[in-house]
Amino acid sequence: MKYVYSFISGQADGSAKMKNTLGGKGANLAEMANLNLPVPPGFTISADVCTYYYDNNRTLPDVLEEQVLSGIKAIENDMGKTFGSEEDSLLFSVRSGARVSMPGMMETVLNIGLTSKTIPGLIKQTNNPRFVYDAYRRLIMMYADVVMEKSAGIEPEEGEGIRRKLEGLLEKHKDAKGYTTDTDLTGDDWKQLSDLFKKEIKNTLGQEFPDDHMEQLWGGIKAVFQSWNGTRAINYRRIEKLPDEWGTAVNVQVMVFGNTGEESATGVAFTRNPATGENKFFGEWLTNAQGEDVVAGTRTPNPLNEEIKTPDTMNLPSLEISMPESYRQLVDIRNTLEKHYTDMQDIEFTIQDGRLWMLQTRTGKRNGAAAIKMAVDMANEKLIDRKTALMRVKPEQLDELLHPNLDPDGEKKATLLAKGLPAGPGAASGRIVFTADDAEKWRDQGEKVILIREETSPEDVHGMHAAEAILTAKGGMTSHAALVARGWGKCCIVGCGAMHIDLKKREAHIHNIVLKEGDWITMNGTVGKVYAGQLGLIPADPETHDEYKILMSWADDVRLLKIRTNADSPNDAIQARGFGAEGIGLCRTEHMFFDEERIMAVRKMILADNPEDKRSAVMELLPYQKKDFKGILTAMETLPVTIRLLDPPLHEFITLTEEQTAELAASVGVEKSLVEKRIAELHELNPMLGHRGCRLGIAYPEITEMQGRAIMEAAAELTQEGKTVYPEIMIPLVGTVTEFQNQEKIIRSVAESVLAEYDIKVEYTVGTMIELPRACLTADEIAEYAEFFSFGTNDLTQTTYGFSRDDIGSFLPYYLENKILTHDPFQSLDIKGVGKLVSMAVELGRGVKPNLKIGICGEHGGDPASIQFCKENNLDYVSCSPYRVPVARLAAAQAELQ
Amino acid sequence: MKYVYSFISGQADGSAKMKNTLGGKGANLAEMANLNLPVPPGFTISADVCTYYYDNNRTLPDVLEEQVLSGIKAIENDMGKTFGSEEDSLLFSVRSGARVSMPGMMETVLNIGLTSKTIPGLIKQTNNPRFVYDAYRRLIMMYADVVMEKSAGIEPEEGEGIRRKLEGLLEKHKDAKGYTTDTDLTGDDWKQLSDLFKKEIKNTLGQEFPDDHMEQLWGGIKAVFQSWNGTRAINYRRIEKLPDEWGTAVNVQVMVFGNTGEESATGVAFTRNPATGENKFFGEWLTNAQGEDVVAGTRTPNPLNEEIKTPDTMNLPSLEISMPESYRQLVDIRNTLEKHYTDMQDIEFTIQDGRLWMLQTRTGKRNGAAAIKMAVDMANEKLIDRKTALMRVKPEQLDELLHPNLDPDGEKKATLLAKGLPAGPGAASGRIVFTADDAEKWRDQGEKVILIREETSPEDVHGMHAAEAILTAKGGMTSHAALVARGWGKCCIVGCGAMHIDLKKREAHIHNIVLKEGDWITMNGTVGKVYAGQLGLIPADPETHDEYKILMSWADDVRLLKIRTNADSPNDAIQARGFGAEGIGLCRTEHMFFDEERIMAVRKMILADNPEDKRSAVMELLPYQKKDFKGILTAMETLPVTIRLLDPPLHEFITLTEEQTAELAASVGVEKSLVEKRIAELHELNPMLGHRGCRLGIAYPEITEMQGRAIMEAAAELTQEGKTVYPEIMIPLVGTVTEFQNQEKIIRSVAESVLAEYDIKVEYTVGTMIELPRACLTADEIAEYAEFFSFGTNDLTQTTYGFSRDDIGSFLPYYLENKILTHDPFQSLDIKGVGKLVSMAVELGRGVKPNLKIGICGEHGGDPASIQFCKENNLDYVSCSPYRVPVARLAAAQAELQ
Repeated sequence: MKYVYSFISGQADGSAKMKNTLGGKGANLAEMANLNLPVPPGFTISADVCTYYYDNNRTLPDVLEEQVLSGIKAIENDMGKTFGSEEDSLLFSVRSGARVSMPGMMETVLNIGLTSKTIPGLIKQTNNPRFVYDAYRRLIMMYADVVMEKSAGIEPEEGEGIRRKLEGLLEKHKDAKGYTTDTDLTGDDWKQLSDLFKKEIKNTLGQEFPDDHMEQLWGGIKAVFQSWNGTRAINYRRIEKLPDEWGTAVNVQVMVFGNTGEESATGVAFTRNPATGENKFFGEWLTNAQGEDVVAGTRTPNPLNEEIKTPDTMNLPSLEISMPESYRQLVDIRNTLEKHYTDMQDIEFTIQDGRLWMLQTRTGKRNGAAAIKMAVDMANEKLIDRKTALMRVKPEQLDELLHPNLDPDGEKKATLLAKGLPAGPGAASGRIVFTADDAEKWRDQGEKVILIREETSPEDVHGMHAAEAILTAKGGMTSHAALVARGWGKCCIVGCGAMHIDLKKREAHIHNIVLKEGDWITMNGTVGKVYAGQLGLIPADPETHDEYKILMSWADDVRLLKIRTNADSPNDAIQARGFGAEGIGLCRTEHMFFDEERIMAVRKMILADNPEDKRSAVMELLPYQKKDFKGILTAMETLPVTIRLLDPPLHEFITLTEEQTAELAASVGVEKSLVEKRIAELHELNPMLGHRGCRLGIAYPEITEMQGRAIMEAAAELTQEGKTVYPEIMIPLVGTVTEFQNQEKIIRSVAESVLAEYDIKVEYTVGTMIELPRACLTADEIAEYAEFFSFGTNDLTQTTYGFSRDDIGSFLPYYLENKILTHDPFQSLDIKGVGKLVSMAVELGRGVKPNLKIGICGEHGGDPASIQFCKENNLDYVSCSPYRVPVARLAAAQAELQ
Repeated sequence: MKYVYSFISGQADGSAKMKNTLGGKGANLAEMANLNLPVPPGFTISADVCTYYYDNNRTLPDVLEEQVLSGIKAIENDMGKTFGSEEDSLLFSVRSGARVSMPGMMETVLNIGLTSKTIPGLIKQTNNPRFVYDAYRRLIMMYADVVMEKSAGIEPEEGEGIRRKLEGLLEKHKDAKGYTTDTDLTGDDWKQLSDLFKKEIKNTLGQEFPDDHMEQLWGGIKAVFQSWNGTRAINYRRIEKLPDEWGTAVNVQVMVFGNTGEESATGVAFTRNPATGENKFFGEWLTNAQGEDVVAGTRTPNPLNEEIKTPDTMNLPSLEISMPESYRQLVDIRNTLEKHYTDMQDIEFTIQDGRLWMLQTRTGKRNGAAAIKMAVDMANEKLIDRKTALMRVKPEQLDELLHPNLDPDGEKKATLLAKGLPAGPGAASGRIVFTADDAEKWRDQGEKVILIREETSPEDVHGMHAAEAILTAKGGMTSHAALVARGWGKCCIVGCGAMHIDLKKREAHIHNIVLKEGDWITMNGTVGKVYAGQLGLIPADPETHDEYKILMSWADDVRLLKIRTNADSPNDAIQARGFGAEGIGLCRTEHMFFDEERIMAVRKMILADNPEDKRSAVMELLPYQKKDFKGILTAMETLPVTIRLLDPPLHEFITLTEEQTAELAASVGVEKSLVEKRIAELHELNPMLGHRGCRLGIAYPEITEMQGRAIMEAAAELTQEGKTVYPEIMIPLVGTVTEFQNQEKIIRSVAESVLAEYDIKVEYTVGTMIELPRACLTADEIAEYAEFFSFGTNDLTQTTYGFSRDDIGSFLPYYLENKILTHDPFQSLDIKGVGKLVSMAVELGRGVKPNLKIGICGEHGGDPASIQFCKENNLDYVSCSPYRVPVARLAAAQAELQ
C-alpha cells in the first residue's frame, strides 16, 4: 500500500487529479512540481492514513515509517541537505490538506527540525542567530499548543492554554525590556525566551519539549490527523455538509523563509481580481516576512504590481518594482498556471534570499459578479468553452447581482443579535415595527421599516409589502412570510427562535437585549443574520452587468427546460418577465380574496344559509377577479399563465376578533351567534389536510364557476382587443380523478358559455396541481382528463414526509444538525422519496398522454439540484419566484450540460 | 339481439345464472320453470333494454315489439287463453327485477288486460263480478299512480297525488254507504267507483285511462324502466353502492289470484327460519287474499304449519291443516328448491281455486345468528361443503353476536332523534351526561349513562369507560371517540352534526328537541341512529352459540393470515384473546401517560429547562410503564406483543385551563408565564404533521430510553418468573431510515443493558410502523435495519390523500353522496392509492429482507375487503380492535378461499 507521495520539482508521484488521496493542497503541489515550477520539495501522506488512524484506535500503519523515511531521503537527495544534520539541517513544515479546503480548521506545525543539535549549524549557515532563534521560539509555541496540548486532548480553562501562557511570557519580557514590537527583540532575547518557554511547557504540561527532529516530525504528523476530528473541523464539516469519512492528507515540505532579510519576501496572489473578475494579476506581499504576517494584518501588505494600485496603496512599494526579476518569474508562473488549470488561481509564494518558491496553488474563491465576468472573459479568450463558462458560475451566485447586499466590511464589525432561517436573500436596514398597519403607516411617513411578527398571515400582506424586510420568530423556509418575501425578492428571515415578541409593549427580546419599536436593525437575508443598528448596503442591478447578460444568453441557448415564474400580480409578472420568465407557472388567486373590498363578499358567502345567497355573494367577486386576470394575462401576453383556483380553507377568511365578529354580523344582518357558529364549524384541527383545494370548489361549485368565468371573460376581452393570451386553469389538491372530473366539468361548461357569449376563440387548457401522494400514484387516471400537470412539491413534501412546514421548526434544526436529514426537504427536493413519487407520476401520466405538459411550481422550482432532477425527469418547465428566475435559467442550462 | 326470454313451466329461455340479463326475479322464475315447478308463464324483458332506453332518449328498441308479441303468443299457447280476448282474457302483471333485489324501490302494475272489452267475458268465466271489478279498480289506481302520474314525471304537491285522490273517493263512497271495511263493498260499488276513478283521472291528469290491453301493457313496461331512475331507486342504489349502469329487467307474467274465494290463498315463506336459522319450514299465509295483503299487515297472517305456531298464533289456522294437498306440494317444492339452490330460499306462492302457483324464489335474507346456524347445519347436512359454509356468512354478521342489539320491534316504534356515523356497533340505553367526570359520578351512583361530547380527547377516557355508549357531534369513523369505543366494543356514534351542545346549560339541541342532562336516550351504533327514551336490548354472548364456535374453528383451519388485536390494557388483551387474537399488533403507550399520577411527570418533563431535570421527570414514569407492560405481556403470554413508543405531540399533555396552568406552575415551582410560554411553543398548526412519533423520541431520547427500559425490564422479570413473552418494540412515524437508526440504537443499547443486568435472555425485535408515504417509498432502506413492518394505514391514508381524519367530516358525506369517493378510505383501504404504497413497501422491504415480518395495525385490520388485500399482498397478520377479531378471523378465511 502506497501511503507516501513525493513531489520534487520536475518529478512528482501524484497529480492534480489525485485530490481524494492527496487532498487539494498535496495534489496541487504535485501538479506544480510536474509543471517544473519551483516548489519546495516534500511529500504527501495520503488521506487513507487518516482513515486507518481512526479505524485503528488512533495508530498509524506500520509501513508508514519506512515510506516517510524514503520520502525524506528523496528530499535530501534533491536539496543536497540532511534532515537533522548538525551542519545545515533541512527544516520541514507539516500541513493538513483535505479534498476541499477547510481554511484554518486543522493544524499546522512549521520549522520542524530545530533542535539543540541543528541550531548551531543553522546559525553558522545563515549567519543570522536572531532569525534562527525566532524560528525556534515559533516552533516551540506552535508545537506546544498544537501537538502537546490540543492533540493530546488537554482542554485548559479559557485563557489558560499553553499558547496564552507563552504569549504572556513574551509580553512580560518585552515589558521588562521596554520593547514595543516583536522586531525589537534580538537573537538573544529569542534564545532566552525559548528557554523560558521550554520550562513553562514542562511545568504546565508535565513533559519536555522534544529535542529530537524525528520526534518533532511524527508529533506534527499525528497532530494533523488528530485535528481532523477537532471541534472546529467537525463543526465546519457539518455546516459545509462534508463527509467525515474523507479524512485529511498530511503535507511534509521543506521550509522556505521569507523573513531571512531584505532579499526575502512572501505574498499571496490571485491570477485575476477575485472581487471584480478583472483580468489583472492581483495580490499582496511583504518583504522580510512569513506568510502568516500577510494574512494576520499586523503589517499593511504592499500591492503586487503597479496596475492594481489604489489611492490608498499608491505610495507603497510593488513587487514589480522592488524585485523585478522575481515578479517577472511570478507573472510567467501565473500565466502557466491559468493556462494549465484554465481557471483563476489563488497562489502563495515566498522569496528566500532572492529565490522564488511556490507554496500553493488552488482554484480561487470569487464573488458572484467576479465569477460571471471571469467565466465570460475566459470563454471569450478561448481559455475555456462556453459550456465550461456556464458550469463555472454557481446559480446561487447570481443572487448577489439581484439583491442589495451588506457591505462586507461593515458586516464584520457589526453586532450580531440573532440567527434565523435565510428565507429571502439580500440585505436590508430599517426601523422595527410590530404590526402590518404600523409598517404601512411608518412607511407612509417616509420611514424605512422592518416588520417583526411571530409569524405572518395573509392579513399582514400590506405591511409586508410596505416593509424593507420581514423578520419572524416562527415558521420555516416555506412559511407564509418566506413565500411572500421570496416572491417579491424581499429580504426575509424566519424561524428566529431566540426572539420573543411582546406585542402589547411593542418589544422584541433576544436573550438580554430588548428591541423597541423604532429601533434600527439590519438583516442579511442571504445567511439569516440579524444585526443591531443601520449598516451600509451595496445596491444591485444585474442589467448593468454586461457579462451577466452574455452568460444568461448562453444559458438560454443551451437549456431545453422552460422557466416560468410564480406571480400573483401584474407587477410581479412584469418583473419576472424582465428576469426572463417564459410564462407564469403558478398564479395563486387567494391573495385576491383578501382585499378589503372583497373579503366581505367571501364572508357573506360563508355565512349564507341558502344556495341563492351563497351564489350571489360569490358573484360579487367576479368583476374584481376579472380585472385581476386581465392585468396578469396582459403582463404575460403571448406567454402561458397557469391560474390556480382558490386553495386555502375558508376559515382563513374569517379569522375575526370579538369586535369584528359583531361588525360582520351587523353588516350581513345575522345574529352574532350565527357568525360564531360558522367560525366554529369551519375550525379545523389540521387545516393543511382539511377542507381546501378542489374540495372547496366541489362543495362550493359557485366559486369554481365564478373563477372560471372571470378567467375566461378576461381572456375573451383581451382577445377581442387583439391580444394573444394563454390561460391554463389549474385545479388544486386533486387526490382522485373524480375530483378532477367534477371541477373540470364546471370549468369547461362555463368556459364554453363565455366563449359563445363573446363569440370568440381562446386557447385554454384545464389541468391540475399534483401535490398529494395519491395524485402521483393514480396519475394515469388523472392524465386521461387533465391537459397538464404541475407538481406542487411544497405540499407533496408535506404529505410524503408527514411534515407540516409551519411546524417543522421545532425539530428541523435538530434533524439537520444530527444528520437525520441531509438537507431541508422544503428547500431542495427529496429525490429518494418525493422525487420517486414525481418520477412515478410523470411515467404514469405520459404513459396515458405522451405529450402531457408537466411542470413544477413548488419552491423547489428555483433550487438548482431540484432543477437538475426536473430535467432528468423530462419536465417541460420549472416555475419559481421572480427573483429566482435567473438562477433557474442558469441551473437549467447546467442540468442540460451535466 | 334477443331481448325477450320466455319462461313456461318445463321450458325457459333463461336460467338462474342469467341474473345480469334477466334480473334476480326473472332468472329465478326461469330456473323454477326449468325445474318444472308450477310457475305462471311469462317472459322477461332483459336489462339491456333498460340500458338502451336511457342511452336512446328514453325510447325502446324497434325489435322489442315483435319479441314481446311472440312472448305473449307462447304464453297464450301454454295457457290456451288469449290476451285481450272477449271470452277469457289473460291478465298480466308487470314487475321490475334488478340483479339484486331492491325491495319496493321500483314500480309494479298488476291486472293488466282489464278493459271494457275483456271484463264481461271474465265476469262470465269467474261468475264473480265483485272479484273482477275489484281487480279493475286496483288496476286503475295503480296504473294512474305509476304510469300516468309518476312515470310521466308529474310531481303533485304532498297529499295531492292521484292515488290519494282516488283513495279519497273510495273513503267518501264508504262513508256515504256506511261501510267500514273494503270487504263491505259489492261488485256494483267497485264498478261505480271504477267509473268515478276514470273521471277523476281525466280531470286531474288530463288524459283518459287507457281502455286497450296492449296500451296498458306497454305503459306498464315503460313505467318500470322509468322507475329505475326514480328518486327512491337512485337513493337506494347510492346507499347500497349499486351501479347505475345495471338497469332493471321487466317481468311480464300471467296473473294468478289468491282472492277468488275460500279455495284461494296467498303466502310468503322461508325454507328455514331466517331469524334463528332453525331447519323448519317457516312462513305466513292468508285465504282469499292477494300478496300485498300478507305484506301490508292489514290482516293478521296465519302460520304456515303446526310446528312453527307460537302462543300468539296457536289458534290460527295453518296451511298444513287447512289445505293439506297444497301444503304437501309446497313442502316438496321447498325441498326441491333448497337442494337445487343449496341455500335458504325466500318464496312467494299463490293458490288460485286450489291450484298452487310459485311466484318467486330467491336466496333469503337472514340475520347473523341465523346465517351462522344455517351455514353450519347445511355443511353438516352435506348440502354444502365447509368452504361454502364459510363464504356464506358475511363477516359483519358476526357483529350481531358480539354486541347487544336493539329489539327490532321496539326500534320500529321509537322516535328517531338524529343520525350520525356508526362508529361502534351494538346498542345501548342510558341517561345523558356531558362531561367525563359526570359520567363517572353518575355511574358510581348506579346509573347507566351515555356520554355526549363535542368530540372526545384522551382526557375523557375515564368517562368514556364509565359510559354505556358515546355520542359526539364531531369527528369521523377514526376519530378518538371511534377508536377508543371500538377498542372496547362499546356502542358509539360520532359526527352527529345535527346535535348542538350547550355545555354550560348541560343541554343538547337536535333541531327543535332539547335533551337535558339525565334524559334517557337509546343508540343503535350499528347503523348510527339515536332514539329518544329507553328501548329494549337483546344481549349478546357468542360463546353460547355452538354453531358460531364451529364456524370459527373452520375459519381458523383455513386461514393463513394471523389475527392480532390492538389493545392497550391487560383487560382488553384478555378479552381479545378470548375472541381468538393471536397476539397484539398495536399496544399504544400514550394512554398510559394520561393517568392522573403520571401526567404530572410528563408535564414536568415538558417544563424542564435542563437535560437532568428532563431525564429525572421522565424516569419517574418508568415504574408505572413497567407495570403496564408486565400486565399486558402476561395477558398475552406465549404470543407476540407489539408495543409502539410514544406517538402523540406533547401539547396533548398540557391542554390546560387558566386555573390548571397556575396549579401546574405552582406545583412544579416555576412562573406561570413559563408554563404559558411552553404551551405556546408546543402549539402546532397541523399537529397531525407535527412534532410527534419518532420525532419525539429523537428530540427527547430519554423517553425512548425509559420506554425501552420499561419494556425490557418487564420482559426480563416475567422471563425470570418462567413466563414466555415476545415483546416487539415499534418505532412510530418513521419517514427516513436515519430516524429509525437513531431510535433503534437507543433501544438496542438499553435492551442489552437490561438483559445484562438481569443476566437473562429475552427474544425481542425492533421494527417500525409504516405510516408515511416516504416510509413506503424508501422501505428497502428501512428494511435493512427494521425487523418488522406494521402498516399504520390510518395515518398512511391521511397523508396519501391529504385528509385529516378529524376534519374530513365537513366534506366526506358530500363526497360519498356524489360518488367522488366510493367509500370512506378510513374504513376500507383505498386499494388504488394507499394500497399501491403498501404493495410497494412490501415488495421493497422483502426484496432486502425476504422473511421480513409484515402486518397491518390500522383500523383497516378489521375490514374484510382490506383483509383480502392484505392476504393478496402476503402480509403475515392483521391487527384490529378486540371486537373485530372474530370478524377478521372469518374474513381472513374467506380471503384464503377467494
